[in-house]
Amino acid sequence: MSLNIPSVKVPRVVIIGGGFAGLELANELGNKAFQTVILDRNNHHQFQPLMYQVATAGLEPSSIAFPFRKIFQKFRHFHYRMVSVLKIFPEKKRLLTDNGEIYYDYLVIATGAGNNFFGNANIEKYAMPMKSISEALALRNTIFQRFENALTSEEETEKQANLNFAIVGGGPTGVEIAGALAEMKNAVLPKDYPEMDFTKMRIIIIQGDDRLLSAMSPKSSEKADLYLKELGVEILYNTRVTDYDGASVTFNNHDSIATKTLIWAAGVIGNRIAGLNEAVYGPGGRIFVNEFNQCAAHESIFVIGDVANVQGDELYPNGHPQMAQPAIQQGKLLAKNLVRLQNNEAMKPFKYKNLGNMATIGRNKAVVELPNSKFQGFFAWLVWLVVHLRSIIGVKNRFIILLNWIWNYFTYNLSLRLIIRSKDKSL
Amino acid sequence: MSLNIPSVKVPRVVIIGGGFAGLELANELGNKAFQTVILDRNNHHQFQPLMYQVATAGLEPSSIAFPFRKIFQKFRHFHYRMVSVLKIFPEKKRLLTDNGEIYYDYLVIATGAGNNFFGNANIEKYAMPMKSISEALALRNTIFQRFENALTSEEETEKQANLNFAIVGGGPTGVEIAGALAEMKNAVLPKDYPEMDFTKMRIIIIQGDDRLLSAMSPKSSEKADLYLKELGVEILYNTRVTDYDGASVTFNNHDSIATKTLIWAAGVIGNRIAGLNEAVYGPGGRIFVNEFNQCAAHESIFVIGDVANVQGDELYPNGHPQMAQPAIQQGKLLAKNLVRLQNNEAMKPFKYKNLGNMATIGRNKAVVELPNSKFQGFFAWLVWLVVHLRSIIGVKNRFIILLNWIWNYFTYNLSLRLIIRSKDKSL
Repeated sequence: MSLNIPSVKVPRVVIIGGGFAGLELANELGNKAFQTVILDRNNHHQFQPLMYQVATAGLEPSSIAFPFRKIFQKFRHFHYRMVSVLKIFPEKKRLLTDNGEIYYDYLVIATGAGNNFFGNANIEKYAMPMKSISEALALRNTIFQRFENALTSEEETEKQANLNFAIVGGGPTGVEIAGALAEMKNAVLPKDYPEMDFTKMRIIIIQGDDRLLSAMSPKSSEKADLYLKELGVEILYNTRVTDYDGASVTFNNHDSIATKTLIWAAGVIGNRIAGLNEAVYGPGGRIFVNEFNQCAAHESIFVIGDVANVQGDELYPNGHPQMAQPAIQQGKLLAKNLVRLQNNEAMKPFKYKNLGNMATIGRNKAVVELPNSKFQGFFAWLVWLVVHLRSIIGVKNRFIILLNWIWNYFTYNLSLRLIIRSKDKSL
Repeated sequence: MSLNIPSVKVPRVVIIGGGFAGLELANELGNKAFQTVILDRNNHHQFQPLMYQVATAGLEPSSIAFPFRKIFQKFRHFHYRMVSVLKIFPEKKRLLTDNGEIYYDYLVIATGAGNNFFGNANIEKYAMPMKSISEALALRNTIFQRFENALTSEEETEKQANLNFAIVGGGPTGVEIAGALAEMKNAVLPKDYPEMDFTKMRIIIIQGDDRLLSAMSPKSSEKADLYLKELGVEILYNTRVTDYDGASVTFNNHDSIATKTLIWAAGVIGNRIAGLNEAVYGPGGRIFVNEFNQCAAHESIFVIGDVANVQGDELYPNGHPQMAQPAIQQGKLLAKNLVRLQNNEAMKPFKYKNLGNMATIGRNKAVVELPNSKFQGFFAWLVWLVVHLRSIIGVKNRFIILLNWIWNYFTYNLSLRLIIRSKDKSL
């Protein structure tokens, strides 16, 4: 096996990962004087902010998955390969993948962050995370399977465990999925299951902190708490999960709740590739880089996005928030800096421009914090819709998402409540 | 475990399978004086005629999958359960499912037909069938994986095996998927993979008979042959597959072709449930029933759709074609006959009204045979589109399919070329 990348005269930039950071970088490098190689295990970019809507049957996976080959048709000297990177050899400027080796002139690590189960193997085995479309689909399948199982449970305790949905983590993901589940409980499920009493369905957020959305202002946290409680969501503050065996989740206060479904939105850890010096890793598995996103020990290696811990931005001494905006801004700047580097010009340091922060809770309910204003409610919800729709790649995808949103809004009818598993054979 | 179906005074009709036949029957029974129970392993009806478009990235699974609970929200005394039926006990009028037992007054077997691998375990293991959405999705994943693998193959023979697609069976499914793959080869793939020479991609139909679409007229077969050859599809007539090991397919004439992908559209066999007398089964695993779709040995048991071999319709001594139309017509009639039976009226015999037969080959190319006319080409293709679109359940689904069709037609851009597998955990 070999990656079969042709040799050309321009320098080769290898980007590991096509998330927000890697995709922006690749797009900006575009037809510049580089050979760009993007390596990703998936053949598509995944739009993470809307994954919770895939998990709750509001959107199709294809609406938030964009095939790399289609995105990059317009570029020359551009190569995508669907591989996993196994090891970096910085001295040799080479990578080992599961499909052969590749040389680089510049390496950009944009591997993002994965689920952090804090070393608990039980939780890793039984909890349902939501960091990829594959996981979101599995969660959708699971949620609808639970209701079917609740219906055929003979014991009341078993039925209740199928109807209890525990969500670990009160950040945007946890809040958004709780809100979507609550909307489903209130508007969709009683029609689908006239035989079942959905007042018994419980949605419980387990938050380690004393407020939700702790990256936002106390006012936003308060509103999120209010909106969720109006929807019937229970919130356990200052509570941490200590164990989960697939049937019952245990907390640090020794309480427990019987639940078949534990949704994991609690923490992330940088996706690590072997070969770098252990000293480059900081808290959360993030790689320390200088203000140019450059690895101190290896000047040909750059790190961007969630996995980067950029030093030198005085407002963010512990690294930038692990969200789309810093990743996109770092990708954009790095493209320019690589050109500067090629031209022997000085690189420019990264300064994060915070464009705002938002989370949606349910119909007509969201919290938005822009640099100059904070607001909540219906208008915030509209802003959330517009901002997310604008970020979607492709006219048809935007149109289909908009159609689904309008349809779901007026009919109270999430139409994608399907249990479908692809029946893959060995490849 | 128990199915937890409430007891009511009206007689209980249990329908096994929610395909075209079972769905039509359930809809027609609707709010009549029966308790209707529909049992299906999937939580949705699958629209089989368009599965090949899911497999070739033209449509989303959700566009051709309709959740049973949504379809049946409007009915009282109606129960859907997501179970597999393990055994029928005709004497006790009971069924055993993987989720407990259930009593019936009338049992309707509408289990349809599955893939017939003619007892070849190798083919069953390695070939890709397309009788369910799960299988169609797996095929989509596989097709796109093949191109990625072709790109990183070091040996020419390995690369070619990834680019060879063999399709066993020249009925509508085989013809339609061959046409769709050829369109993809000609219009989409060269843009996605500028590095690869797609003139090397081969699409080969293997047909046991001496013509395609053998249920249609020789003229239609001739046109299908012509259209497919114009698109670059190769057709091996009078050829049968004897073995396939995942790398090479062997024929009865001892030839072989190296291919990583063998698409199985060759034959079906009735889906069997244990418990019935062996004597009820005829050729292809179909169950002999009288002109009222009633099992001779068990008058409370009815069989409809692909799995039924209805006797007494003189035009169809060997059973009706295993297609949507006979299934739908049998479901519709059985609903009326069950009412007649309840009222002690005489049941009416089934007479198949052939509404026509059609297959699409590619852009602007289809063959249509209506009772009074046969035509081919662009107008046939339009008729095919309209007929299929009209059969889709749900306004939004129709709209999204139409949008995808229009989009794909004008942009030559099947946008759903994604490799996505749901990451399910044990449930």
